[in-house]
Amino acid sequence: MSKHLDQQLDFIREAEKLKTVERRNRTLDGRYENSAEHSWHVALLGLVLADHSEDELNLLKVLRMLLLHDFVEIDAGDTWAYSTRDDGERLRAEQAAAERLFGLLPSGQAEAFHSVWEEFEAGESAEARYARAIDALQPLINHLMTASAEELEETPTKHQVLERKRSIADVSPRLWLLARQIIEESTARGLYRDDAAQ
Amino acid sequence: MSKHLDQQLDFIREAEKLKTVERRNRTLDGRYENSAEHSWHVALLGLVLADHSEDELNLLKVLRMLLLHDFVEIDAGDTWAYSTRDDGERLRAEQAAAERLFGLLPSGQAEAFHSVWEEFEAGESAEARYARAIDALQPLINHLMTASAEELEETPTKHQVLERKRSIADVSPRLWLLARQIIEESTARGLYRDDAAQ
Repeated sequence: MSKHLDQQLDFIREAEKLKTVERRNRTLDGRYENSAEHSWHVALLGLVLADHSEDELNLLKVLRMLLLHDFVEIDAGDTWAYSTRDDGERLRAEQAAAERLFGLLPSGQAEAFHSVWEEFEAGESAEARYARAIDALQPLINHLMTASAEELEETPTKHQVLERKRSIADVSPRLWLLARQIIEESTARGLYRDDAAQ
Repeated sequence: MSKHLDQQLDFIREAEKLKTVERRNRTLDGRYENSAEHSWHVALLGLVLADHSEDELNLLKVLRMLLLHDFVEIDAGDTWAYSTRDDGERLRAEQAAAERLFGLLPSGQAEAFHSVWEEFEAGESAEARYARAIDALQPLINHLMTASAEELEETPTKHQVLERKRSIADVSPRLWLLARQIIEESTARGLYRDDAAQ
Protein backbone atom coordinates (compact mmCIF):
# COMPACT_ATOMS: atom_id res chain seq x y z
CA MET A 1 0.00 0.00 0.00
CA SER A 2 1.26 3.51 -0.74
CA LYS A 3 2.58 5.56 2.17
CA HIS A 4 0.06 8.27 1.29
CA LEU A 5 -2.94 5.94 1.71
CA ASP A 6 -1.34 4.28 4.73
CA GLN A 7 -1.21 7.66 6.51
CA GLN A 8 -4.80 8.42 5.55
CA LEU A 9 -5.85 5.06 6.94
CA ASP A 10 -4.08 5.78 10.24
CA PHE A 11 -6.10 8.98 10.54
CA ILE A 12 -9.38 7.21 9.68
CA ARG A 13 -8.68 4.50 12.28
CA GLU A 14 -7.83 7.12 14.87
CA ALA A 15 -11.19 8.78 14.14
CA GLU A 16 -12.93 5.65 15.45
CA LYS A 17 -11.98 6.86 18.95
CA LEU A 18 -14.15 10.00 18.73
CA LYS A 19 -17.18 7.68 19.10
CA THR A 20 -15.96 6.92 22.62
CA VAL A 21 -15.52 10.54 23.77
CA GLU A 22 -18.53 11.30 25.95
CA ARG A 23 -20.15 14.69 26.36
CA ARG A 24 -22.36 15.91 29.22
CA ASN A 25 -25.50 15.85 27.09
CA ARG A 26 -27.67 12.78 26.58
CA THR A 27 -29.28 10.92 23.69
CA LEU A 28 -32.93 9.90 23.41
CA ASP A 29 -32.00 6.38 24.55
CA GLY A 30 -30.36 7.73 27.70
CA ARG A 31 -26.68 7.33 26.87
CA TYR A 32 -24.23 10.19 27.04
CA GLU A 33 -23.93 11.74 23.60
CA ASN A 34 -20.51 11.20 22.06
CA SER A 35 -18.49 13.71 20.08
CA ALA A 36 -18.78 11.79 16.79
CA GLU A 37 -22.59 11.77 16.67
CA HIS A 38 -22.59 15.36 17.95
CA SER A 39 -20.31 16.25 15.02
CA TRP A 40 -22.75 14.66 12.58
CA HIS A 41 -25.64 16.57 14.13
CA VAL A 42 -23.88 19.95 13.94
CA ALA A 43 -22.84 19.32 10.32
CA LEU A 44 -26.49 18.63 9.54
CA LEU A 45 -27.59 21.83 11.33
CA GLY A 46 -24.90 23.65 9.37
CA LEU A 47 -26.50 22.47 6.12
CA VAL A 48 -30.08 23.14 7.19
CA LEU A 49 -29.65 26.59 8.76
CA ALA A 50 -27.20 28.20 6.33
CA ASP A 51 -29.90 30.49 4.95
CA HIS A 52 -30.00 32.32 8.31
CA SER A 53 -26.42 33.53 8.07
CA GLU A 54 -26.18 37.21 7.25
CA ASP A 55 -22.87 36.57 5.49
CA GLU A 56 -22.28 34.65 2.29
CA LEU A 57 -20.80 31.30 3.27
CA ASN A 58 -18.48 28.79 1.67
CA LEU A 59 -20.56 25.84 2.81
CA LEU A 60 -17.90 23.26 2.02
CA LYS A 61 -15.57 25.05 4.41
CA VAL A 62 -18.33 25.19 7.05
CA LEU A 63 -18.83 21.42 6.78
CA ARG A 64 -15.10 20.73 6.97
CA MET A 65 -14.98 22.81 10.15
CA LEU A 66 -17.97 21.13 11.75
CA LEU A 67 -16.77 17.63 10.88
CA LEU A 68 -13.32 18.36 12.33
CA HIS A 69 -14.08 20.81 15.15
CA ASP A 70 -13.99 18.22 17.96
CA PHE A 71 -11.36 15.90 16.52
CA VAL A 72 -8.78 17.07 19.06
CA GLU A 73 -10.96 15.61 21.82
CA ILE A 74 -9.59 12.20 20.87
CA ASP A 75 -6.50 13.20 22.85
CA ALA A 76 -7.72 16.17 24.89
CA GLY A 77 -11.19 14.94 25.94
CA ASP A 78 -14.41 16.94 25.90
CA THR A 79 -14.62 20.06 28.03
CA TRP A 80 -18.08 20.94 29.29
CA ALA A 81 -19.19 24.40 28.12
CA TYR A 82 -19.66 25.53 31.75
CA SER A 83 -16.54 23.87 33.09
CA THR A 84 -14.27 25.78 35.44
CA ARG A 85 -11.26 24.00 33.93
CA ASP A 86 -8.35 26.33 33.24
CA ASP A 87 -8.74 27.60 29.67
CA GLY A 88 -5.01 27.92 29.06
CA GLU A 89 -4.47 24.29 30.00
CA ARG A 90 -7.31 23.17 27.75
CA LEU A 91 -5.95 25.18 24.84
CA ARG A 92 -2.47 23.73 25.25
CA ALA A 93 -3.86 20.19 25.36
CA GLU A 94 -5.98 20.80 22.27
CA GLN A 95 -3.11 22.32 20.33
CA ALA A 96 -0.85 19.39 21.12
CA ALA A 97 -3.68 17.07 20.07
CA ALA A 98 -4.14 18.91 16.76
CA GLU A 99 -0.42 18.65 16.11
CA ARG A 100 -0.39 14.89 16.66
CA LEU A 101 -3.74 13.98 15.10
CA PHE A 102 -3.68 16.07 11.92
CA GLY A 103 0.00 15.15 11.66
CA LEU A 104 -1.04 11.55 10.98
CA LEU A 105 -2.23 12.65 7.52
CA PRO A 106 0.02 12.94 4.46
CA SER A 107 1.73 16.31 4.21
CA GLY A 108 -0.41 18.84 2.40
CA GLN A 109 -3.58 17.29 3.79
CA ALA A 110 -2.19 17.53 7.34
CA GLU A 111 -1.62 21.27 7.02
CA ALA A 112 -4.97 21.83 5.29
CA PHE A 113 -6.96 20.03 8.01
CA HIS A 114 -4.98 21.68 10.79
CA SER A 115 -5.62 25.08 9.29
CA VAL A 116 -9.40 24.47 8.99
CA TRP A 117 -9.46 23.57 12.70
CA GLU A 118 -7.42 26.68 13.58
CA GLU A 119 -9.75 28.87 11.56
CA PHE A 120 -12.71 27.44 13.48
CA GLU A 121 -10.94 28.02 16.79
CA ALA A 122 -10.06 31.62 15.89
CA GLY A 123 -13.73 32.29 15.12
CA GLU A 124 -13.02 35.26 12.88
CA SER A 125 -14.02 34.32 9.32
CA ALA A 126 -17.70 34.27 8.34
CA GLU A 127 -17.57 30.46 8.11
CA ALA A 128 -15.97 30.10 11.54
CA ARG A 129 -18.46 32.47 13.19
CA TYR A 130 -21.38 30.59 11.64
CA ALA A 131 -19.92 27.16 12.50
CA ARG A 132 -19.33 28.25 16.10
CA ALA A 133 -22.89 29.56 16.39
CA ILE A 134 -24.20 26.22 15.11
CA ASP A 135 -21.97 24.35 17.57
CA ALA A 136 -23.44 26.53 20.35
CA LEU A 137 -27.05 25.99 19.21
CA GLN A 138 -27.09 22.19 18.82
CA PRO A 139 -26.56 21.38 22.54
CA LEU A 140 -29.44 23.72 23.47
CA ILE A 141 -31.81 21.83 21.18
CA ASN A 142 -30.49 18.44 22.23
CA HIS A 143 -30.55 19.27 25.96
CA LEU A 144 -34.18 20.34 25.93
CA MET A 145 -35.10 17.06 24.21
CA THR A 146 -33.05 14.63 26.27
CA ALA A 147 -32.37 16.05 29.74
CA SER A 148 -34.46 15.65 32.86
CA ALA A 149 -33.96 18.04 35.77
CA GLU A 150 -33.73 15.18 38.30
CA GLU A 151 -30.79 13.50 36.60
CA LEU A 152 -28.54 16.52 36.03
CA GLU A 153 -25.29 16.54 37.97
CA GLU A 154 -24.82 20.28 37.68
CA THR A 155 -27.03 22.99 36.20
CA PRO A 156 -25.61 26.30 35.00
CA THR A 157 -27.70 29.42 35.57
CA LYS A 158 -29.75 30.90 32.77
CA HIS A 159 -27.44 33.90 32.84
CA GLN A 160 -24.40 31.69 32.31
CA VAL A 161 -26.07 29.97 29.38
CA LEU A 162 -27.09 33.27 27.75
CA GLU A 163 -23.52 34.54 28.13
CA ARG A 164 -22.05 31.33 26.70
CA LYS A 165 -24.36 31.37 23.68
CA ARG A 166 -24.26 35.07 22.83
CA SER A 167 -22.11 34.44 19.71
CA ILE A 168 -25.27 33.18 18.01
CA ALA A 169 -26.62 36.76 18.04
CA ASP A 170 -23.77 38.00 15.83
CA VAL A 171 -24.61 35.47 13.13
CA SER A 172 -28.38 35.67 12.97
CA PRO A 173 -31.00 37.58 15.01
CA ARG A 174 -33.52 34.87 14.16
CA LEU A 175 -31.34 32.02 15.45
CA TRP A 176 -30.62 34.10 18.57
CA LEU A 177 -34.35 34.51 19.17
CA LEU A 178 -34.72 30.74 18.81
CA ALA A 179 -31.84 30.14 21.24
CA ARG A 180 -33.40 32.48 23.82
CA GLN A 181 -36.77 30.75 23.51
CA ILE A 182 -35.13 27.37 24.07
CA ILE A 183 -33.19 28.71 27.06
CA GLU A 184 -36.42 30.12 28.58
CA GLU A 185 -38.27 26.84 28.11
CA SER A 186 -35.34 24.84 29.46
CA THR A 187 -35.16 27.11 32.52
CA ALA A 188 -38.89 26.68 33.10
CA ARG A 189 -38.31 22.91 33.13
CA GLY A 190 -35.47 23.19 35.63
CA LEU A 191 -32.68 22.36 33.18
CA TYR A 192 -30.98 25.67 33.95
CA ARG A 193 -31.22 27.57 37.24
CA ASP A 194 -33.33 30.72 37.20
CA ASP A 195 -31.09 33.55 38.42
CA ALA A 196 -34.16 35.65 39.40
CA ALA A 197 -35.37 32.89 41.71
CA GLN A 198 -32.16 32.72 43.73
CA MET B 1 -40.92 32.00 15.31
CA SER B 2 -41.21 31.91 11.51
CA LYS B 3 -42.80 28.86 9.93
CA HIS B 4 -39.64 28.38 7.86
CA LEU B 5 -37.41 28.06 10.96
CA ASP B 6 -40.07 26.06 12.76
CA GLN B 7 -39.98 23.43 10.01
CA GLN B 8 -36.19 23.38 10.03
CA LEU B 9 -36.26 22.85 13.79
CA ASP B 10 -38.66 19.91 13.40
CA PHE B 11 -36.19 18.28 11.02
CA ILE B 12 -33.24 18.94 13.37
CA ARG B 13 -35.14 17.44 16.31
CA GLU B 14 -36.12 14.42 14.25
CA ALA B 15 -32.43 13.96 13.42
CA GLU B 16 -31.77 13.29 17.12
CA LYS B 17 -33.34 9.85 16.56
CA LEU B 18 -30.61 8.70 14.17
CA LYS B 19 -28.34 8.42 17.22
CA THR B 20 -30.58 5.59 18.44
CA VAL B 21 -30.58 3.55 15.20
CA GLU B 22 -28.17 0.68 15.81
CA ARG B 23 -26.06 -1.04 13.18
CA ARG B 24 -24.51 -4.51 13.32
CA ASN B 25 -20.98 -3.14 13.71
CA ARG B 26 -19.43 -2.20 17.04
CA THR B 27 -17.52 0.70 18.53
CA LEU B 28 -14.21 0.53 20.41
CA ASP B 29 -16.12 0.69 23.71
CA GLY B 30 -18.23 -2.31 22.74
CA ARG B 31 -21.57 -0.68 21.92
CA TYR B 32 -23.33 -1.17 18.64
CA GLU B 33 -22.38 1.65 16.30
CA ASN B 34 -25.29 3.95 15.53
CA SER B 35 -26.14 5.48 12.18
CA ALA B 36 -25.37 9.05 13.27
CA GLU B 37 -21.77 8.38 14.30
CA HIS B 38 -21.37 6.13 11.24
CA SER B 39 -22.55 9.07 9.11
CA TRP B 40 -19.93 11.31 10.67
CA HIS B 41 -17.22 8.73 10.03
CA VAL B 42 -18.14 8.27 6.35
CA ALA B 43 -18.28 12.05 5.83
CA LEU B 44 -14.76 12.24 7.26
CA LEU B 45 -13.57 9.40 4.99
CA GLY B 46 -15.20 11.25 2.11
CA LEU B 47 -13.06 14.30 2.87
CA VAL B 48 -9.83 12.38 3.46
CA LEU B 49 -9.97 9.99 0.50
CA ALA B 50 -11.29 12.28 -2.24
CA ASP B 51 -7.90 12.38 -3.97
CA HIS B 52 -8.34 8.67 -4.87
CA SER B 53 -11.41 9.25 -7.02
CA GLU B 54 -10.64 8.99 -10.72
CA ASP B 55 -13.44 11.51 -11.42
CA GLU B 56 -13.52 15.19 -10.54
CA LEU B 57 -15.86 15.54 -7.56
CA ASN B 58 -18.11 18.26 -6.23
CA LEU B 59 -17.05 17.63 -2.65
CA LEU B 60 -19.87 19.66 -1.13
CA LYS B 61 -22.35 17.38 -2.87
CA VAL B 62 -20.44 14.31 -1.65
CA LEU B 63 -20.65 15.57 1.94
CA ARG B 64 -24.36 16.35 1.63
CA MET B 65 -24.91 12.79 0.41
CA LEU B 66 -22.87 11.16 3.15
CA LEU B 67 -24.48 13.27 5.90
CA LEU B 68 -27.96 12.39 4.62
CA HIS B 69 -27.51 8.89 3.20
CA ASP B 70 -28.87 7.03 6.25
CA PHE B 71 -31.44 9.61 7.37
CA VAL B 72 -34.31 7.41 6.18
CA GLU B 73 -33.29 4.80 8.79
CA ILE B 74 -35.04 6.99 11.38
CA ASP B 75 -38.26 5.47 10.07
CA ALA B 76 -37.07 2.44 8.11
CA GLY B 77 -34.32 1.12 10.43
CA ASP B 78 -30.89 -0.08 9.42
CA THR B 79 -30.64 -3.05 7.06
CA TRP B 80 -27.53 -5.19 7.47
CA ALA B 81 -25.48 -5.31 4.26
CA TYR B 82 -25.78 -9.14 4.18
CA SER B 83 -29.41 -9.28 5.20
CA THR B 84 -31.79 -11.56 3.35
CA ARG B 85 -34.59 -9.02 3.85
CA ASP B 86 -36.67 -8.46 0.73
CA ASP B 87 -35.07 -5.60 -1.19
CA GLY B 88 -38.36 -4.35 -2.62
CA GLU B 89 -39.86 -4.07 0.84
CA ARG B 90 -36.80 -2.20 2.13
CA LEU B 91 -36.88 0.20 -0.80
CA ARG B 92 -40.57 0.96 -0.30
CA ALA B 93 -40.02 1.61 3.42
CA GLU B 94 -37.06 3.89 2.69
CA GLN B 95 -38.93 5.83 0.05
CA ALA B 96 -41.87 6.43 2.37
CA ALA B 97 -39.39 7.51 5.05
CA ALA B 98 -37.70 9.97 2.67
CA GLU B 99 -41.07 11.41 1.76
CA ARG B 100 -42.03 11.99 5.40
CA LEU B 101 -38.64 13.03 6.78
CA PHE B 102 -37.41 15.41 4.08
CA GLY B 103 -41.00 16.67 3.87
CA LEU B 104 -40.55 18.14 7.37
CA LEU B 105 -38.27 20.82 5.85
CA PRO B 106 -39.51 24.05 4.26
CA SER B 107 -40.37 23.63 0.60
CA GLY B 108 -37.36 24.16 -1.62
CA GLN B 109 -35.06 22.68 1.01
CA ALA B 110 -37.27 19.57 1.24
CA GLU B 111 -36.95 18.89 -2.49
CA ALA B 112 -33.22 19.66 -2.52
CA PHE B 113 -32.45 17.24 0.35
CA HIS B 114 -34.72 14.55 -1.08
CA SER B 115 -33.02 14.83 -4.44
CA VAL B 116 -29.52 14.52 -2.93
CA TRP B 117 -30.65 11.32 -1.21
CA GLU B 118 -32.16 9.98 -4.45
CA GLU B 119 -28.98 10.75 -6.35
CA PHE B 120 -27.01 8.79 -3.75
CA GLU B 121 -29.44 5.88 -4.00
CA ALA B 122 -29.30 5.85 -7.81
CA GLY B 123 -25.50 5.62 -7.63
CA GLU B 124 -24.95 6.99 -11.12
CA SER B 125 -23.24 10.38 -10.80
CA ALA B 126 -19.53 10.57 -9.99
CA GLU B 127 -20.37 11.92 -6.53
CA ALA B 128 -22.86 9.14 -5.82
CA ARG B 129 -20.48 6.40 -6.97
CA TYR B 130 -17.71 7.81 -4.79
CA ALA B 131 -19.99 8.31 -1.79
CA ARG B 132 -21.30 4.74 -2.12
CA ALA B 133 -17.77 3.36 -2.32
CA ILE B 134 -16.87 5.28 0.86
CA ASP B 135 -20.01 3.98 2.58
CA ALA B 136 -18.93 0.44 1.59
CA LEU B 137 -15.34 0.94 2.80
CA GLN B 138 -15.99 2.41 6.27
CA PRO B 139 -17.62 -0.72 7.76
CA LEU B 140 -14.70 -2.87 6.56
CA ILE B 141 -12.23 -0.66 8.43
CA ASN B 142 -14.46 -0.38 11.50
CA HIS B 143 -15.24 -4.12 11.62
CA LEU B 144 -11.59 -5.16 11.58
CA MET B 145 -10.93 -2.75 14.48
CA THR B 146 -13.91 -3.56 16.68
CA ALA B 147 -15.21 -7.09 16.00
CA SER B 148 -14.16 -10.30 17.68
CA ALA B 149 -14.93 -13.62 15.97
CA GLU B 150 -16.41 -15.09 19.17
CA GLU B 151 -19.06 -12.42 19.54
CA LEU B 152 -20.39 -12.31 15.99
CA GLU B 153 -23.98 -13.47 15.55
CA GLU B 154 -23.58 -14.19 11.84
CA THR B 155 -20.57 -14.06 9.58
CA PRO B 156 -20.89 -13.61 5.83
CA THR B 157 -18.45 -15.49 3.61
CA LYS B 158 -15.45 -13.73 2.13
CA HIS B 159 -17.03 -14.20 -1.29
CA GLN B 160 -20.21 -12.43 -0.17
CA VAL B 161 -18.20 -9.53 1.20
CA LEU B 162 -16.14 -9.19 -1.98
CA GLU B 163 -19.34 -9.19 -4.05
CA ARG B 164 -20.98 -6.61 -1.79
CA LYS B 165 -17.99 -4.27 -1.90
CA ARG B 166 -17.10 -4.52 -5.59
CA SER B 167 -18.41 -1.00 -6.31
CA ILE B 168 -15.23 0.32 -4.67
CA ALA B 169 -13.24 -1.03 -7.66
CA ASP B 170 -15.08 1.25 -10.09
CA VAL B 171 -14.07 4.33 -8.13
CA SER B 172 -10.43 3.65 -7.34
CA PRO B 173 -8.13 0.66 -7.95
CA ARG B 174 -6.09 1.75 -4.93
CA LEU B 175 -9.05 1.81 -2.57
CA TRP B 176 -10.15 -1.56 -3.96
CA LEU B 177 -6.72 -3.00 -3.21
CA LEU B 178 -7.04 -1.65 0.34
CA ALA B 179 -10.52 -3.16 0.68
CA ARG B 180 -9.29 -6.57 -0.47
CA GLN B 181 -6.37 -6.46 1.97
CA ILE B 182 -8.76 -5.66 4.82
CA ILE B 183 -11.11 -8.46 3.75
CA GLU B 184 -8.21 -10.95 3.67
CA GLU B 185 -7.00 -9.92 7.11
CA SER B 186 -10.54 -10.01 8.51
CA THR B 187 -11.06 -13.48 7.06
CA ALA B 188 -7.81 -14.67 8.61
CA ARG B 189 -9.13 -13.46 11.96
CA GLY B 190 -12.41 -15.31 11.53
CA LEU B 191 -14.54 -12.19 10.98
CA TYR B 192 -15.68 -13.54 7.61
CA ARG B 193 -15.98 -17.21 6.69
CA ASP B 194 -13.34 -18.53 4.31
CA ASP B 195 -15.19 -20.08 1.34
CA ALA B 196 -12.17 -22.22 0.43
CA ALA B 197 -12.21 -23.83 3.85
CA GLN B 198 -15.82 -25.00 3.65
